Amino acid sequence: MKIGFIGLGHMGSAIAANLLAAGHELTVWNRSPGPAKKLAEKGAHIASNLEDTLQGDVLFSMLANDDAVRQVGLDGPLLSRARPGLVHVNLATISIDLADELSNAHGALALGYVAAPVFGRPDVAAAGNLTVVAAGSPVDIAFVKPLLEVIGGRVVVAGDRPKQANLFKLAGNFMLSAAIESMSEAFALVRKGGIDAHLFHDALSASLFACSVYQGYGDAIVNERFEPAGFPVRLGMKDVRLALEAARELYVPIPLAGLVHDHFVEASVAGFADKDWASLGSLLASKAGL
Amino acid sequence: MKIGFIGLGHMGSAIAANLLAAGHELTVWNRSPGPAKKLAEKGAHIASNLEDTLQGDVLFSMLANDDAVRQVGLDGPLLSRARPGLVHVNLATISIDLADELSNAHGALALGYVAAPVFGRPDVAAAGNLTVVAAGSPVDIAFVKPLLEVIGGRVVVAGDRPKQANLFKLAGNFMLSAAIESMSEAFALVRKGGIDAHLFHDALSASLFACSVYQGYGDAIVNERFEPAGFPVRLGMKDVRLALEAARELYVPIPLAGLVHDHFVEASVAGFADKDWASLGSLLASKAGL
Amino acid sequence: MKIGFIGLGHMGSAIAANLLAAGHELTVWNRSPGPAKKLAEKGAHIASNLEDTLQGDVLFSMLANDDAVRQVGLDGPLLSRARPGLVHVNLATISIDLADELSNAHGALALGYVAAPVFGRPDVAAAGNLTVVAAGSPVDIAFVKPLLEVIGGRVVVAGDRPKQANLFKLAGNFMLSAAIESMSEAFALVRKGGIDAHLFHDALSASLFACSVYQGYGDAIVNERFEPAGFPVRLGMKDVRLALEAARELYVPIPLAGLVHDHFVEASVAGFADKDWASLGSLLASKAGL
Amino acid sequence: MKIGFIGLGHMGSAIAANLLAAGHELTVWNRSPGPAKKLAEKGAHIASNLEDTLQGDVLFSMLANDDAVRQVGLDGPLLSRARPGLVHVNLATISIDLADELSNAHGALALGYVAAPVFGRPDVAAAGNLTVVAAGSPVDIAFVKPLLEVIGGRVVVAGDRPKQANLFKLAGNFMLSAAIESMSEAFALVRKGGIDAHLFHDALSASLFACSVYQGYGDAIVNERFEPAGFPVRLGMKDVRLALEAARELYVPIPLAGLVHDHFVEASVAGFADKDWASLGSLLASKAGL
Repeated sequence: MKIGFIGLGHMGSAIAANLLAAGHELTVWNRSPGPAKKLAEKGAHIASNLEDTLQGDVLFSMLANDDAVRQVGLDGPLLSRARPGLVHVNLATISIDLADELSNAHGALALGYVAAPVFGRPDVAAAGNLTVVAAGSPVDIAFVKPLLEVIGGRVVVAGDRPKQANLFKLAGNFMLSAAIESMSEAFALVRKGGIDAHLFHDALSASLFACSVYQGYGDAIVNERFEPAGFPVRLGMKDVRLALEAARELYVPIPLAGLVHDHFVEASVAGFADKDWASLGSLLASKAGL
Repeated sequence: MKIGFIGLGHMGSAIAANLLAAGHELTVWNRSPGPAKKLAEKGAHIASNLEDTLQGDVLFSMLANDDAVRQVGLDGPLLSRARPGLVHVNLATISIDLADELSNAHGALALGYVAAPVFGRPDVAAAGNLTVVAAGSPVDIAFVKPLLEVIGGRVVVAGDRPKQANLFKLAGNFMLSAAIESMSEAFALVRKGGIDAHLFHDALSASLFACSVYQGYGDAIVNERFEPAGFPVRLGMKDVRLALEAARELYVPIPLAGLVHDHFVEASVAGFADKDWASLGSLLASKAGL
Repeated sequence: MKIGFIGLGHMGSAIAANLLAAGHELTVWNRSPGPAKKLAEKGAHIASNLEDTLQGDVLFSMLANDDAVRQVGLDGPLLSRARPGLVHVNLATISIDLADELSNAHGALALGYVAAPVFGRPDVAAAGNLTVVAAGSPVDIAFVKPLLEVIGGRVVVAGDRPKQANLFKLAGNFMLSAAIESMSEAFALVRKGGIDAHLFHDALSASLFACSVYQGYGDAIVNERFEPAGFPVRLGMKDVRLALEAARELYVPIPLAGLVHDHFVEASVAGFADKDWASLGSLLASKAGL
Repeated sequence: MKIGFIGLGHMGSAIAANLLAAGHELTVWNRSPGPAKKLAEKGAHIASNLEDTLQGDVLFSMLANDDAVRQVGLDGPLLSRARPGLVHVNLATISIDLADELSNAHGALALGYVAAPVFGRPDVAAAGNLTVVAAGSPVDIAFVKPLLEVIGGRVVVAGDRPKQANLFKLAGNFMLSAAIESMSEAFALVRKGGIDAHLFHDALSASLFACSVYQGYGDAIVNERFEPAGFPVRLGMKDVRLALEAARELYVPIPLAGLVHDHFVEASVAGFADKDWASLGSLLASKAGL
């Protein structure tokens, strides 16, 4: 297929490379030129402007947040210059409100829109092994599913309204942050009681909690290894905030999310904004005087 | 070895059976006679009174809570009639304060004392696959370690003060309760957004959260299957309370534990006290009007 | 002065009547015609359209929330038809973000803009005894201050940026909600211990807490008198949400606000959305099984 | 009457002086001799030992906490040497559990027992203007009420079980701590928004919150004046902990108390344990980077 791709950060670049490797024709655009050049070496066309990326069958975008989506005009201005029938696959973790707005804006122009946020870090993306959560009209989903299967080892269809995929992703990220909070508190408690936190973490993450979230973030916390940030506090805080906003609109009390959010605020104030969100572990330890 | 065993609930019976099967000589006691008779069929002696259980090399006890430990007199009265040199292995999840008191009481009589709470449910106990967390003097630990290896697939030594094993266990149970809270909130959120909670749970527990805690409790929540209770709300509430009390004495803020505790209180008031602690999922759903 | 007035709910009508009584010339507008007719009997002109209200020296507006402000066009469209030099006094409790946007929109048209949210209920407004919190450029403030003194017994100048008055008001409303939460929890606790909550409330609100917030809301809670709603749960929830949003932008953790917000969500789900926000008292009592 | 008095700290000394001034005969005891000498100058007898204080009609005690009560033996040993018919008035803020235990211990010896914790600081005590909350059997209450009226401007009878007075007091202290938390968060919020916290505090404590709790603690927070401590963090933390323990036994969720308690823990770790509990204001400000 002819595919446009906007947003070539670590995640976007890895995903685009997999689409290229699967034989698709890509036209890529990025704010800074470096990542586009690297993909051009693998056969991608470099778009001369944003509009070029909307002339194929499908547009993928992977932008940092709501503001970035608006800045490139994907909430309207840019769309009006799209090839008729284009389907836009938005990989970013954005707000529920923007998801609704984008869905409407695309629909008004008879363009397809699929929300497809992903779980996984750049190395998982490079391995084509992301968990992709998609939502949109069944027709649009069916059209892009072969592409989603290229980038993800698992594709879950959350519903027929795009925002459902975004809610799914926000709820999942909330659960990640809750696991970090839980370990941060538990590790501070056992350490203050004279127990080696490594010992505690190793025992639990080898048995009841033998899964990547606990193993990976637990290791980061006990070793105080928060750089380079796989996912920084400021993005974790943003996602928990978006989960809280979604919860408010839906009238669902999620007090644990409020608690974690406040800790991200404290961590930011304390200078951890660009460190990995597992650095909550150090914040909680410092509260206990460790 | 000659072993006494007090407390033959589901967990105690399964553990005692494994000690028997490993060739040890057991003298067992239980408040109600049924479980002792079953073990007698497998070769155990039935103690004619509590004192009989303290005449061997080692005493195991597996009682429900602090009060039960005091009622049988293991905080002092009964100990004075023990065989000199006996080592007591206390498998129960008790308070840090009682752990210290018991340690002192045994020491004053020159008896050994090892705290050895376990992670795992009755079926795991029956399979001899518990995670045993032991703490006590190195000499006592070395003496009973072969027995602990009979009952557990993994033996972790938390420290040389018995209460450290209890703190370890309480911190672990707190993490379990936090995982339940996290899923309860996330599931309510996605459901209110029109997403099938099974779909959400299946995707996460097959990837980032592919471990028994999330798989097992998540299944219980999405299927609203809280009976028979593997671990009831009232015991979960007790353990989180003990974790909070330990945290207070150690000056460690663990706000997530406070939040979970209040939900256990609400769940108890709402009639869930004897249901599985995963029933927090239904409490949180009801708060959201589901 | 020649004054326009938009928004004649209970609060707006009472304030407008005081401006009339002080000898000013009022042109009033309201979505439904009833309240305007009542003011006309006291000498006000009824605007034939919204634009009429912007042809005097000053425009007052008292609208329910951000959306209502946008619907009448006070975020831009309507302003372009204002008399040059008009100063707009916005009495409503709106978001910090909208306050900033309105300030800019007025500035771009060389119109004055003063945010002037008020503390007090309709009877206090009728008595001309509101606490008015104003913010804006010193010139604008000086121009409208005589009018503010007509409607309020106390005028506080919070700063020279309009949004500061809104933040002041949101922080104040948060403190009100916190007092309600505090009494709700304390009353449930003493009642469950067999103490008459009236006795408890009477003793405290006659001594340490001898102020209107505790006296008034405490009476409402112990007597379960939540209708007619002086200030309904849905508005209280909105204001706490706005406080939380402001706190997020400013990086201030206010966990008590998060706790209260979640209780307002639960109260809404339980059917209290249009009851007085003191009905948190009944929510908390029900959590305790009372 | 002939009155014994144990515990002559700032509060105890002021209360004892008022009883003396009212014409009663006092025999006083204190751990350190200084305060007893001062009262002797006003006519009190100095007890040669603790037992001397239990030979009159009534014994007052004002000790710091549960441990201090046990150390002097008022939980049993000392009582056995009391004059038959003695009524003990316990002014201290102790736990519900100890209140029950003391009530039983006195009853078993046919001694009277009235719990009578007080609201107010030493200057209020000196003025004989405390709020006294009493609970006990009607006969005992009737007997000591004239004395309680000497020391307090207001005497409230909470119930006929002594622990009800203690629960009343703990719930009241919780409300005080909640007011401090509320101001601490609100002040941090407005300050971070560029508003003078004095201005905010002055406006609210002169209107909606025109009562001594808000005026006094608010002044302390905005002026960062936490020494000398009227009531230190460590005692505030103790009382909130006792409220939480009472709430657990009664199955009442009081999440705001949990939140405040964790902040007291953080404040203690940060070095505020002996500063006034209003220093929560500085803790919350520091979390916001102020």
